[in-house]
Amino acid sequence: AIDGERLWQTLMDLAVIGATPKGGCNRQALTDLDREGRELLIRWCKAEGLAVRFDAIGNVFARRNGSNAAADPIVIGSHIDTQPTGGKYDGCFGVLAALEVIRTLNANGIETERPIELVSWTNEEGCRFAPCMMGSGVFSGQLTLEDALSRTDVNGVTAGAALEAIGYVGDDADRPGRFAAYLEAHIEQGPILEDTGDTIGVVTGALGLKWFDVTVTGMAAHSGSTPMHLRQDALLGATRVVEAVNRIALAHQPDGRGTVGAFQLLPNSRNVIPGQVMLSVDFRHSQAEVLDTIVAEFRQTLDAIARETGLSIEIATTADYPPQHFDADCIAAVRQGARANGYAHRDIVSGAGHDAVFIGDIAPTAMIFIPCEKGISHNESEYATPEDVTAGANVLLHATLSLAGV
Amino acid sequence: AIDGERLWQTLMDLAVIGATPKGGCNRQALTDLDREGRELLIRWCKAEGLAVRFDAIGNVFARRNGSNAAADPIVIGSHIDTQPTGGKYDGCFGVLAALEVIRTLNANGIETERPIELVSWTNEEGCRFAPCMMGSGVFSGQLTLEDALSRTDVNGVTAGAALEAIGYVGDDADRPGRFAAYLEAHIEQGPILEDTGDTIGVVTGALGLKWFDVTVTGMAAHSGSTPMHLRQDALLGATRVVEAVNRIALAHQPDGRGTVGAFQLLPNSRNVIPGQVMLSVDFRHSQAEVLDTIVAEFRQTLDAIARETGLSIEIATTADYPPQHFDADCIAAVRQGARANGYAHRDIVSGAGHDAVFIGDIAPTAMIFIPCEKGISHNESEYATPEDVTAGANVLLHATLSLAGV
Ligand SMILES: NC(=O)NCCC(=O)O
Ligand SMILES: NC(=O)NCCC(=O)O
Repeated sequence: AIDGERLWQTLMDLAVIGATPKGGCNRQALTDLDREGRELLIRWCKAEGLAVRFDAIGNVFARRNGSNAAADPIVIGSHIDTQPTGGKYDGCFGVLAALEVIRTLNANGIETERPIELVSWTNEEGCRFAPCMMGSGVFSGQLTLEDALSRTDVNGVTAGAALEAIGYVGDDADRPGRFAAYLEAHIEQGPILEDTGDTIGVVTGALGLKWFDVTVTGMAAHSGSTPMHLRQDALLGATRVVEAVNRIALAHQPDGRGTVGAFQLLPNSRNVIPGQVMLSVDFRHSQAEVLDTIVAEFRQTLDAIARETGLSIEIATTADYPPQHFDADCIAAVRQGARANGYAHRDIVSGAGHDAVFIGDIAPTAMIFIPCEKGISHNESEYATPEDVTAGANVLLHATLSLAGV
Repeated sequence: AIDGERLWQTLMDLAVIGATPKGGCNRQALTDLDREGRELLIRWCKAEGLAVRFDAIGNVFARRNGSNAAADPIVIGSHIDTQPTGGKYDGCFGVLAALEVIRTLNANGIETERPIELVSWTNEEGCRFAPCMMGSGVFSGQLTLEDALSRTDVNGVTAGAALEAIGYVGDDADRPGRFAAYLEAHIEQGPILEDTGDTIGVVTGALGLKWFDVTVTGMAAHSGSTPMHLRQDALLGATRVVEAVNRIALAHQPDGRGTVGAFQLLPNSRNVIPGQVMLSVDFRHSQAEVLDTIVAEFRQTLDAIARETGLSIEIATTADYPPQHFDADCIAAVRQGARANGYAHRDIVSGAGHDAVFIGDIAPTAMIFIPCEKGISHNESEYATPEDVTAGANVLLHATLSLAGV
């Protein structure tokens, strides 16, 4: 069994880097704080004797050798970047549970047959640079390295420049080749496990996702001297886009999700009619065909809004992946890990995207969820109990050992 | 008659400071560029032998003596701060037309009976620091100096700190006392004069204005894992506020105006349901009672939105002034100036707020409007023709002389 107190302490130690006033974390991808977080993680890995490398998109790998040097590794981990007002657990739990598994094996002198690779993927959150799961996306070939490095944040800084600035441009020759399996532990980020009273979610797959950037263009003009009937108010168009996203998602329940999370006005001045609004759209669904229907309805509605208002509306796709179904053997290993530890558990589909979604395309993959308080995530008040954190890491240990062989 | 070419050249010279890519100007109040603009203006004033002072809120006064040293001055001017994507004419035209009047008097060796004071008011636009017309508001007692200096921009910088940083904290002992009259030339910023083919608008008054900051608070949560029915999406509430502002203004035509110009989401991340939205609301009307009705409807509607959505909605007033009716004698002097020059003219009510609106409470006041292309203002493409700029300054010269006495 893993050492729950030690794991909790590493979680708290990492959370100091980028700590926010309300008890959360702001350690966005490829910032100086991300660099500090990476350095602390690497120090911990080296203390366990692991061989640390990073690849061209900055994914960090830390290897514990197995008895069979030729065998493909079991890879375990997640990410340590956070949202602007994120929590302490999203991502970090998976990486530090992986570290705790390795610490436990070391402390007990256990040699596995297969090597074990801890991984910390670059820019999972996708908030500073879209798309999300950028590091695993490049690794799995969903996204080219060039495309990823060319993405810009709101200040026009490219991901490539930011990665270079923090000193994490590695070499793809150093990254592991084929994975025997990939396992990722994570907080659920939703309300289901808390509701059913289960300690472990055996994750069987994830919702598909489509992200868009929408630009609504009207005409900036004076708010006092421009009569109502002569306006081309981009915000009134954007408002209808927000409503459409909500309405379309509601029409595809229970699995449909539609969210406008980011919104930028130009010139954003209280006495100027907005000339332009840029907004982000996030749609998700468990079935690829329904997700396509959602997007078709969305495009039709935006065409209609543009026609009716005379505003121009442009749509660009920023992220796009289909629903994922994980590997039956990996799922079984997770389920068996929960059972062996006597934890109440249930199958669950992830509403959030995870690096496992992309890695699932190139390797046998599964995930382990633990509950988080009230299902709240991407929020400074995100919380998981020490008991559940311990349970999730124990399941990861059990599943890893069963797949790696002792 | 004034020198139209010289006036045009000063307009273009000032517009270099803060020039934007699309031919406009970004010289927001109390920035370094505002300081540069002030320095250029003061250099020009000193070259004309004017005595330059500034008061505690940074309003700049430049005095040309009259033959009667004890007489109250005729004050002429406007402002030189701009919107983030503003034009070259809004405000600057009034200040530089005043400078041109003085240059013309100097060039022709004309002595007036009353002194003439050129004024350039601090922070008329109100975009970086609300409220608008801050300098004339403090001067006229609409706003206390302490209140004004304590207002903050989006970065939390106070107006007081910004004023000190640019070195324009002056002394109220240096400001002129009673005004014999105040005249302000300005572009119309609306479409009426262009539509009627008039060169000069004889401004008889201005719409009243009420500004609010509205904060809608819900709960930030993950956009993928939070089912639609468990959300408290602050943006969906804010969207209803935007619609309400538009609907209420439309219900009070032709004079009602309602605008949401600024909008800020927290955390503003594409995969987070917005936890909070802050937005600005700008209502205007020509009649005080109707403006009150508008605000009452607005508050009722926001109460209903809060009740129906379960979101919390807070409202703070950031600016508030009633409709203004200018002084009959000053209006007559403007009308007579247009007539004497043979310019087509008509009476007009200003939709925009102006420093003249506040000064009208403490001194006889009127304004001179000239057309601007397509009525577009608060936009980089704002434009007025050299002919109209010349005409406006000629009317200002004529009205100033008739009020100052020769
Ligand atoms: N797990 C997580 O928060 N991933 C970020 C990508 C997403 O929005 O689902
Ligand atoms: N003239 C002008 O643009 N004033 C700014 C205040 C307002 O919004 O009316």
